[in-house]
Amino acid sequence: MSETSAAAAPSGQTPSEGGARRGAAYDSAFLRAARREPVPHTPVWFMRQAGRSLPEYLKVREGIPMLDSCMMPELVKEITLQPVRRHKVDAAIFFSDIVVPLKAVGIDVDIKPGIGPVIADPIRTVEDLQRLRPLEPDDMPYITEAVGMLVEELGATPLIGFAGAPFTLASYLVEGGPSKSHEKTKAMMYGQPELWAALVDRLADITAAFLKIQIEAGASAVQLFDSWVGALAPDDYRRSVMPASSKVFDAVAGYGVPRIHFGVGTGELLPLMSQAGADVVGVDWRVPLNVAAERVGPGKALQGNLDPAVLYAPTHVVETKAREVLHAAQSLGGSGHIFNLGHGVMPSMDPDALTRLVAFVHEATER
Amino acid sequence: MSETSAAAAPSGQTPSEGGARRGAAYDSAFLRAARREPVPHTPVWFMRQAGRSLPEYLKVREGIPMLDSCMMPELVKEITLQPVRRHKVDAAIFFSDIVVPLKAVGIDVDIKPGIGPVIADPIRTVEDLQRLRPLEPDDMPYITEAVGMLVEELGATPLIGFAGAPFTLASYLVEGGPSKSHEKTKAMMYGQPELWAALVDRLADITAAFLKIQIEAGASAVQLFDSWVGALAPDDYRRSVMPASSKVFDAVAGYGVPRIHFGVGTGELLPLMSQAGADVVGVDWRVPLNVAAERVGPGKALQGNLDPAVLYAPTHVVETKAREVLHAAQSLGGSGHIFNLGHGVMPSMDPDALTRLVAFVHEATER
Repeated sequence: MSETSAAAAPSGQTPSEGGARRGAAYDSAFLRAARREPVPHTPVWFMRQAGRSLPEYLKVREGIPMLDSCMMPELVKEITLQPVRRHKVDAAIFFSDIVVPLKAVGIDVDIKPGIGPVIADPIRTVEDLQRLRPLEPDDMPYITEAVGMLVEELGATPLIGFAGAPFTLASYLVEGGPSKSHEKTKAMMYGQPELWAALVDRLADITAAFLKIQIEAGASAVQLFDSWVGALAPDDYRRSVMPASSKVFDAVAGYGVPRIHFGVGTGELLPLMSQAGADVVGVDWRVPLNVAAERVGPGKALQGNLDPAVLYAPTHVVETKAREVLHAAQSLGGSGHIFNLGHGVMPSMDPDALTRLVAFVHEATER
Repeated sequence: MSETSAAAAPSGQTPSEGGARRGAAYDSAFLRAARREPVPHTPVWFMRQAGRSLPEYLKVREGIPMLDSCMMPELVKEITLQPVRRHKVDAAIFFSDIVVPLKAVGIDVDIKPGIGPVIADPIRTVEDLQRLRPLEPDDMPYITEAVGMLVEELGATPLIGFAGAPFTLASYLVEGGPSKSHEKTKAMMYGQPELWAALVDRLADITAAFLKIQIEAGASAVQLFDSWVGALAPDDYRRSVMPASSKVFDAVAGYGVPRIHFGVGTGELLPLMSQAGADVVGVDWRVPLNVAAERVGPGKALQGNLDPAVLYAPTHVVETKAREVLHAAQSLGGSGHIFNLGHGVMPSMDPDALTRLVAFVHEATER
């Protein structure tokens, strides 16, 4: 852990001998599970827990464009706290968007409702790369401020910082927006491997800087989201993506905060995503956790993996399916499991079903 | 093989002792590979080879709505033959759509350009099920006519019949159209398991009838497409989908024609999709063929699995990646491999790249 981060660390945080930060949240169930230590109960949080499923979110976001909201620290604090208050989840996830650091280095990007991130001038040539300058802490005072306020307010509840991974960011930049088939992205990856490598390397530096800013402001874990990487076969991941993702994980290794890695449809990639440097591997709902544990290998915690669509079923079904997840997680040996959905919360979900699920997992696993 | 099918079989088709039909295409590389017999070269065809990637297709379809075109035998014949003429692929795939049999039993369905199939009145209750009456051969004289003309014209080139699998059809019917998350479908599957089972059972009967019509008119293989089934975890597939898919495969087992099964994102489902009754398992590009072979188990052929996006790269990259697929297929022991993409041809693909790929695979594997 660097001097800078120690200086920036909020109330009570001091570096441990082993490099792990001992902030107020250090002994939380979430961080203990991430370190594979015994837990009082299986911790729970939900990807996209802060967002459109909550009426209180829709209210505070009214009339404020998505990317503007990410630069308003008080609003970010409120939105991040909403699901913690409502659901009693074991961790908060910092409310932001994966394209925020791209905007911070000057990329013309907007998030269009119903579409997603749209890039005005896609990145497709060596010259275009120049527009991806390094990200400096001064580029994002609003992130440092929001994280600092949150960590103070959250106390013993950990805050998870987050960033989009190089492949997923590259896909948005090359395609110019969301894509199902990633044609242009893969065309560059397969056809111009040097340009591709330079692109994801620059994105690795930006991503690492974004995570460092959050950690130094007090985030006690980070999750690297590689939303689209499940579109790749293992050999392509190994050759064209893993070096950049590893660079991100290596860059934040010294802080001693757990590093979570997640992507959708990544069954075949789990061994490599684990090797890339994750301490905790997020698993989508397609791979049973006991199978995932074998692929991920020893020494890692797992996060997941209830099918989000189960939340549309009656409560008794939700509980039966949640029990199946907990049962599969027992193969991990009683610890090292963070309960989550196998993908993000969907806007049309009933928030009460999520609240009930948190209580159910806590009760079912109380030790 | 039934008497009916023998009677309906075109020129030269007679049932073999083992039940396999010995039509003009019987000794084709495609059918030999499907039976895991030695082949003169690895056979190649492409999912969606007949369609929007071809200018000659766009020309003949001009002004004709998709579902109308599927009921015009001369047009179906022409469209099905176009990629055979152009690319010299080893098999034709019958040009139709998975919702054609639903329309034939009276479901109000339309295919909207840029969206996909849209169902006017979704199926969501026990009463709704009544609208899914059994499919009779007389419901589809245009299919029998088109297949018959095609088999005559194709001679030694096999025609693959096809149908959508019960889960995928159910998803369209329950959601009312295409869905990314299959929320309503899974809500029924999880929350009303008896209604769900009755729905997919009716769809299994309709699907089996659709395939029988094609086989009895002369198709020498069939592919059951379960496009969306990769959205399910293995346990859910086993409980809620496999019985219906198995029913389809069982219903056509007696004809002795190879039964191919394919879905996207099905890495975890390959063992079960194989057990469901496939003779040939289609593999998407995410799972290397040697890994797929282990999951599928002995006694099955494999079909696949070049990442379609590779076709946007320069020729030397396409050839390198195709060689990797052929190399992985060697673990099958030299036969039992049908080369294909790991998903369908995309409309924006250069048809010449596909033609070159067919020639490359043929040359690279000539024995």
